[in-house]
Amino acid sequence: MIHFSINKNLFLQALNTTKRAISHKNAIPILSTVKIDVTKEGITLIGSNGQVSIENFISTQNENAGLLVNSTGSILLEATFFINVVSSLPDIILDFKEIEQKQIVLTSGKSEITLKGKDADQYPRIQEISASNPLVLETKILKDVINETAFAASVQESRPILTGVHFVLTDNRSLKTVATDSHRMSQKKITLEKNGDNFDVVIPSRSLREFTAVFTDEIETVEVFFANNQILFRSENISFYTRLLEGNYPDTDRLIPTEFTSVLTFNTSDLRAAMERARLLSNATQNGTVKLEITGGVVSAHVNSPEVGRVNEEIDTESVTGEDLTISFNPTYLIDALKAIDSEKVTISFISSVRPFTLVPSEDTENFIQLITPVRTN
Amino acid sequence: MIHFSINKNLFLQALNTTKRAISHKNAIPILSTVKIDVTKEGITLIGSNGQVSIENFISTQNENAGLLVNSTGSILLEATFFINVVSSLPDIILDFKEIEQKQIVLTSGKSEITLKGKDADQYPRIQEISASNPLVLETKILKDVINETAFAASVQESRPILTGVHFVLTDNRSLKTVATDSHRMSQKKITLEKNGDNFDVVIPSRSLREFTAVFTDEIETVEVFFANNQILFRSENISFYTRLLEGNYPDTDRLIPTEFTSVLTFNTSDLRAAMERARLLSNATQNGTVKLEITGGVVSAHVNSPEVGRVNEEIDTESVTGEDLTISFNPTYLIDALKAIDSEKVTISFISSVRPFTLVPSEDTENFIQLITPVRTN
Repeated sequence: MIHFSINKNLFLQALNTTKRAISHKNAIPILSTVKIDVTKEGITLIGSNGQVSIENFISTQNENAGLLVNSTGSILLEATFFINVVSSLPDIILDFKEIEQKQIVLTSGKSEITLKGKDADQYPRIQEISASNPLVLETKILKDVINETAFAASVQESRPILTGVHFVLTDNRSLKTVATDSHRMSQKKITLEKNGDNFDVVIPSRSLREFTAVFTDEIETVEVFFANNQILFRSENISFYTRLLEGNYPDTDRLIPTEFTSVLTFNTSDLRAAMERARLLSNATQNGTVKLEITGGVVSAHVNSPEVGRVNEEIDTESVTGEDLTISFNPTYLIDALKAIDSEKVTISFISSVRPFTLVPSEDTENFIQLITPVRTN
Repeated sequence: MIHFSINKNLFLQALNTTKRAISHKNAIPILSTVKIDVTKEGITLIGSNGQVSIENFISTQNENAGLLVNSTGSILLEATFFINVVSSLPDIILDFKEIEQKQIVLTSGKSEITLKGKDADQYPRIQEISASNPLVLETKILKDVINETAFAASVQESRPILTGVHFVLTDNRSLKTVATDSHRMSQKKITLEKNGDNFDVVIPSRSLREFTAVFTDEIETVEVFFANNQILFRSENISFYTRLLEGNYPDTDRLIPTEFTSVLTFNTSDLRAAMERARLLSNATQNGTVKLEITGGVVSAHVNSPEVGRVNEEIDTESVTGEDLTISFNPTYLIDALKAIDSEKVTISFISSVRPFTLVPSEDTENFIQLITPVRTN
């Protein structure tokens, strides 16, 4: 039966990381528990929601953990409740001891709390991925790519494949990531520092957002392993599994236009602020759009809500070339797109009032491109 | 028609204060608007939910306001929406101009936003209180008294009078404030620095909580005026009106015991932490109680939930006198009581396992007393 003692704060931190894969109210009750596996080498905390699984290892070699394992074993504990109890304990040292009937006794200072656990055999098996020949990525680069694309994935299940982000590696080092909800698209290309085996997978955008939360900035590199329908992101202590989406991702390359009639450059944050003002009123209109007008080099934004009022605003530009144009679109798509752009300036290129327009950061016009489809108005 | 210009940030701050009286979805739609009254002297912002009304005055003399009034008048604007629009404006200076058909044009930088307003005549009249012979209180003292009592008022409407806090002034300077929900009671007495007319009123605890949010610490003193069924708290710029509760407040003095069999002193925050641990498990029990045991000078807390587990904890004491005792109660009441006590140490006095027990801060045993009723268990 399990018996160990550990630094409460480090244990709590690891529990909270693992809990990101655990939903409080899962249709499968056993998935609301955390699995605690104790071996002579250390403790593994395991959580899963069926889609994403996290294994978090605390080694007896980790000096900050103060981990002393007296006796090994496995047990399941209700995750949210267990975390609340651990965080309430008075002392920095926590003693965890299994007693009869799958109960555990937590002792800390003068406090003694007994909790009922469950048999670890009830826990589903996380599919193993043969950990050979990994792709090695810098965590920060992978997180940037996710932040630049995942927001554009669909949140509706009508076309499940569009709820994912398409990751394609070609020539062993050219990585292309794309997401689209069919109204807007975001595509980022990077060249890897180290070669890897080519792949073509669609990763659920929700899993990727959890990934960015779990892999903190202290974790410098991450190893990526593929199996049939799963992907594993692994650091020294954390293994993050997610299922892949099945099906063919649409060909998005053919959507990207290359010739334009009007090209404008804006200050990114000024344009975003103008769109946020416009959105306050466009939310109260029937089609929810803002109208952008380019007239003789002057750009202005207009919203007219018969119920609430109207916005008219001249928007400062860095440069304007090409023809005059009037185009209407959902300002939220432009706000989301601008949020994903780190660059001080952004270049927006138009073809016509009914064709998608593109955004590129002015400092990296080749590798990061976004598309927004306009709304036809009368 | 109204026309003024003002510093956006100061205007926004005043709007947000006024908005505390405005509920977004009021059964009376006109009460979701803010009334803006512009005179040559300044701007008054008025909000009301029928229970609480706030008038906030911005003087043309206020240098931080940068207020220039060109033309006077009154108008109503949807409060939440108007505040969102003002906070989105690009420039520090905001120009506010009424045009035809109760519309207003906000101009700031290159942004021009037109909003539809409503006729100010539609707004209900806030009852006037003749502002003579005020009671003058230090804001901090009044806020402390509210924080020490209002939490103990009832949140249920079954006995409406108990949703208020009983304020009684006797001898022109002895103020007693009491709140109880019939399970616990909190009473604070203070002696006023300046004499006032005696009164006996019951103020809704919800109004008092709004009062503590509206009257910030920079406002040193507050004048209090009474009318038949209303009370007015007034500072230089803010008038805060609230309706009073009608009916007789129960006689609470007779509830306060004076003789005890066991008297214990604890460190306030240690006891609170122990009760918070106990509550994690008592929430999962049928009667939601923690059992406190005093045995030969040792105090311990116990919870036993057949479903979830149990807590057993020895609690450090500063002193223990009197008889052994076992008593059960809802730990939330004790946690709330301890939160209201600023003192490092707290003295708890018991009579028996079925009689209410008292809490007093160890540094002020005369003026602040709380009562908690135990729960009978088998």
